Amino acid sequence: MTQDEAKGLVAKRATEFVKDGMVVGLGTGTTATIFIRELAACGRKIRCVASSDASHDLAASLGMSVATLAELPELDVYIDGADEIAKVKGMGFALIKGGGGALLREKIVASAAKSFIVVADSTKMVEVLGKFPLPVEVIKMALPVVQPRLAALGLNPKLRQAKNEAGPYLTDEGNYILDCACGRIEDPEKTAAAIRAVVGVVEHGLFLGMATLALVAGEDGVSEVRP
Amino acid sequence: MTQDEAKGLVAKRATEFVKDGMVVGLGTGTTATIFIRELAACGRKIRCVASSDASHDLAASLGMSVATLAELPELDVYIDGADEIAKVKGMGFALIKGGGGALLREKIVASAAKSFIVVADSTKMVEVLGKFPLPVEVIKMALPVVQPRLAALGLNPKLRQAKNEAGPYLTDEGNYILDCACGRIEDPEKTAAAIRAVVGVVEHGLFLGMATLALVAGEDGVSEVRP
Repeated sequence: MTQDEAKGLVAKRATEFVKDGMVVGLGTGTTATIFIRELAACGRKIRCVASSDASHDLAASLGMSVATLAELPELDVYIDGADEIAKVKGMGFALIKGGGGALLREKIVASAAKSFIVVADSTKMVEVLGKFPLPVEVIKMALPVVQPRLAALGLNPKLRQAKNEAGPYLTDEGNYILDCACGRIEDPEKTAAAIRAVVGVVEHGLFLGMATLALVAGEDGVSEVRP
Repeated sequence: MTQDEAKGLVAKRATEFVKDGMVVGLGTGTTATIFIRELAACGRKIRCVASSDASHDLAASLGMSVATLAELPELDVYIDGADEIAKVKGMGFALIKGGGGALLREKIVASAAKSFIVVADSTKMVEVLGKFPLPVEVIKMALPVVQPRLAALGLNPKLRQAKNEAGPYLTDEGNYILDCACGRIEDPEKTAAAIRAVVGVVEHGLFLGMATLALVAGEDGVSEVRP
């Protein structure tokens, strides 16, 4: 099974958790995109809130009812991919998200949902987080202060560059992303607190204890993993 | 002595702590404005970093050398006013700042400085913080999620409105401010941590353990208060 086949399989399964009448939070990224297409195809009577301009536009183009958080501040379920997923004792799931750059809005929409289903292929399941660089969203003018602080924490921060133009990548909120190739994150709560304490940091890609279910596609099909 | 006379007195005293060759962080607000004028008048050979567009423009118009944090990421001293100042056991000074709306950039610039002199008239010194509403800066799209969370914490958040136009006030970074008339803040660290934990909050106006000296103008002149 290719990674794309796995994503398709798990996206299809995720639609089974969506019932008529629900308010559904839409994630951002390759897996979330496949899920949004599957969700539109299955014709449920739902309303959605998107975590990025890209997902908003995709859902609207597929004829889905997309509202803002101001209109629908309470969601039944948020469904999104992740860059890494680990089970951490006493915390449930710890995720790294934000490879696609939408971590801030993703975390805001996820925090408004009663449940959070993370969908992934089995390569994303890890024992310890940190192989994937941890994205940290930073206020632009604070970069010269934040970058050395994160470096002093051993996080090895590197300014993300834009893909299709010159200069640094900018988030939907107009901030920079520092990708932190920090290696094994043995204590995600401690790392999150240390990053959060740096003035000028807006948000980071550690989603701790937020996901309530993981749907993981591997060679044997889709597994439901509980926290 | 009027409040304006007190501000003038303390601003003048603050200039004595600035020596030739220093990099000085400029605050924002009425007291900071008087200080910037005094500093320009005394003709020290210094370079400055401003905490708001307003202070940047004022300093530049007075012929001062104003640079960005990217050019000068390490400051010798940051000098600014505060809305309330308390001495808290084990922490030093706890301040409420952000009445003027510049708390995020103020905190970023202050965090880049080796020392932080807070200048105020004696009405700002309090036993316990909280008479002045605590400003919390919030990502726009997160407002419908953040406001009920802060309300549930008992913080009584109210969206700040713009002064000279219709609609909400916007910070230099394009965010909203929730003014939290929360009453006595008995444990500022606990309050700060609870606010920081709400996804969608960018920064709050509690400056804890950051100020290294307070210059306070009262009937007997200016007192130097140590943390």
